Amino acid sequence: MIAEIIASGSEMLTPFRQDTNSLYLTAQLNELGVSVAFKTIVGDNLEDLTGAARVALERADIVIFSGGLGPTEDDRTREAVAAALGVELRRDAQIVTAMYKRFAERRMKMPENNARQADVIEGAEVLANANGSAPGQYIDTVVGRHRKIVVLLPGPPNELKPMFEAECRPRLAATLPERHMARRMLRMALVPESQVDARTAPIYKKYKDVDTTILAGSAEIQLHFVCAKPTEAEAQARVDELAEKIEQEMGEAIFSSHGESLEEVVLLMLGLRHMTLAAAESCTGGLLAQRLTAVAGSSRYFLGGAVVYADRLKTIFAEVPEELVRDEGPVSEPVARAMAEGIRRRTGASVGVGITGIAGPGPGAPGPDAGKPIGLVYIAISYAGLSGGTSVTELHITGDRERVRWWASQHALELVRQGLLERT
Amino acid sequence: MIAEIIASGSEMLTPFRQDTNSLYLTAQLNELGVSVAFKTIVGDNLEDLTGAARVALERADIVIFSGGLGPTEDDRTREAVAAALGVELRRDAQIVTAMYKRFAERRMKMPENNARQADVIEGAEVLANANGSAPGQYIDTVVGRHRKIVVLLPGPPNELKPMFEAECRPRLAATLPERHMARRMLRMALVPESQVDARTAPIYKKYKDVDTTILAGSAEIQLHFVCAKPTEAEAQARVDELAEKIEQEMGEAIFSSHGESLEEVVLLMLGLRHMTLAAAESCTGGLLAQRLTAVAGSSRYFLGGAVVYADRLKTIFAEVPEELVRDEGPVSEPVARAMAEGIRRRTGASVGVGITGIAGPGPGAPGPDAGKPIGLVYIAISYAGLSGGTSVTELHITGDRERVRWWASQHALELVRQGLLERT
Repeated sequence: MIAEIIASGSEMLTPFRQDTNSLYLTAQLNELGVSVAFKTIVGDNLEDLTGAARVALERADIVIFSGGLGPTEDDRTREAVAAALGVELRRDAQIVTAMYKRFAERRMKMPENNARQADVIEGAEVLANANGSAPGQYIDTVVGRHRKIVVLLPGPPNELKPMFEAECRPRLAATLPERHMARRMLRMALVPESQVDARTAPIYKKYKDVDTTILAGSAEIQLHFVCAKPTEAEAQARVDELAEKIEQEMGEAIFSSHGESLEEVVLLMLGLRHMTLAAAESCTGGLLAQRLTAVAGSSRYFLGGAVVYADRLKTIFAEVPEELVRDEGPVSEPVARAMAEGIRRRTGASVGVGITGIAGPGPGAPGPDAGKPIGLVYIAISYAGLSGGTSVTELHITGDRERVRWWASQHALELVRQGLLERT
Repeated sequence: MIAEIIASGSEMLTPFRQDTNSLYLTAQLNELGVSVAFKTIVGDNLEDLTGAARVALERADIVIFSGGLGPTEDDRTREAVAAALGVELRRDAQIVTAMYKRFAERRMKMPENNARQADVIEGAEVLANANGSAPGQYIDTVVGRHRKIVVLLPGPPNELKPMFEAECRPRLAATLPERHMARRMLRMALVPESQVDARTAPIYKKYKDVDTTILAGSAEIQLHFVCAKPTEAEAQARVDELAEKIEQEMGEAIFSSHGESLEEVVLLMLGLRHMTLAAAESCTGGLLAQRLTAVAGSSRYFLGGAVVYADRLKTIFAEVPEELVRDEGPVSEPVARAMAEGIRRRTGASVGVGITGIAGPGPGAPGPDAGKPIGLVYIAISYAGLSGGTSVTELHITGDRERVRWWASQHALELVRQGLLERT
């Protein structure tokens, strides 16, 4: 069974907006064992939309439309699909009544053209919309000699997703052969994609029944495994077996074996060790703190810290001796070390992080930093107590300001994680 | 003239990857006066790709392909387009020689199948690739009785964009009627979209020759104006005239009249006033600092600040009296005020910002914050010197943790901007 997804809406034919529903729908269809072969984006003009519907009915078994179900003149999906199927639209009295009731409850008069939303394609089942007024439609029919399933869903993701799950997925599942999917995701930070592929391909290529996808980006590699089997237990067993072999090969480079983010893993590891973290950030300017505090519940293990962008603040908030900044320059190994140790002492955290570097666009400032290149970053991690000590890592990160800052925050999290691994 | 963009590549039919080239290509085509009526995404299978090419040649005047020009068996765009046009592929000896030379220069042997990249569609002009080995192709032909322009571009954006600009755009411009485009963008923060539309629609609807798009999202509204005229001066004059009228209507709600970000505007305004900023952030956890420091050159006007997530840090870094936190609760008007004033004093900045709130997922902690709802945020702005004083704003932000944090940072920036407007 092959599917086509058609997103309708003129705003998705501008340089500003992208169709995103299709990513969700593709994941859902794949879970049902259906591949997506085509995606089409078309405006809200009836002729184009009808043409796109005709083309899709010829080349796909399942055609899913998103958008164009509202009450306005621009909402033409119902008409286009009826025309492509060569059937009529009928206004459903029950839907009209329900709409009048909804408006009356809010003491509003229903606009005339709202009734267009009650136009149902001959032979269609109506799909209830829990989060909006436009109902969806589900058509299981025969075109030529081929069975075709056509689904009309509303465009807003908060209406489309619940409607797919409650109304559409069960109908498709009842129609399609039973399949059970299992998924796993392994995540690694800062390992080159080529190295991951060279080391893991000989393993995952042996699992021909598991679909493996490697995604690289933002200083992270993700390995996605998907497997479909007649029972869930069989699918899960295959995916877990492969994941375990990959984990043996890549070892502690894998920070997440069930999809958790690096921030979540670091916070979890701190919690297990009854430890807390604080950070003094210069070139990352709060990015590390912001990433950690984006995780719900982070306040128990991340105390906070300081954004010591101006040199004077390094002294005020992180106890970096003034003469150290003056003599070595703010971007230096000793200053990073002093920042990590100072912020740890000041906050009483078990682990202190200090980050200083040159994010660009210009190289180091005049003085001791003169001539230091864009991308030079020092990250210091300082531990309190018995397992104490401070280590500083010097990095040379390529790319623009945004990339240098992101990779520096990623390195800092990964260095904290590796340090915690040794402190069980 | 109507265009269709076809992105080929099976990875774009997974739930993980999206076609992004089409946004760039749409902007470029619009500038040339061409509307995009269809976008198609198709896998790298020859039959599907040929079918998609045939459909596009029927419904569009200009068809632009991206991807599928590499040397592997999965790169089938050349073959598909030749089949759809009913013409032959010819291996171009000159391209083959150039490829051999390139490999020889690197002392490498060229793999056999690399020569596929030299297969040129009958009647096509070859487009040089400055950043990769796969050349593009440009075909200006007649199908049936209709003139059709077909362009094949490589998939990687760093190859596609320079090739479009250097090789494709000039050819299209020479073919199409001369047009000059002018653009403007106005930006507003925190104003409801419905209000912007109600107030601006009566104005922009009178400018039928200017294409107006309103985009809302992330606590910001953007108004995009595009106008095409025979000369650039005419186009610019129309766009500027409309922008000026909208600026008169919306007044100081518009933070940016040439597209600058809110962070950039705030930093610029601080610079003009020889002022500096520092922030003490609780619920936003460094997000405000991170947004400001993402702007190159921000270090001159943003000194830094403290992420005072743990209560004790509010006292250590922002001089908030311990008993104030204990009695009023960390999420309270007096604590926000003390944070803003404290961080200003400690850092010596001209403006201090204090943000405290409940980002969720849970409501206020036991103690004085018990019962305070998710989304309650206090933002204090404190000014030094002659124009001194501190103001605190209480907000109730709806949505999840991410949204509460983002809107709080947006409100803080907008409040700083409005405060600076009064201090010229």
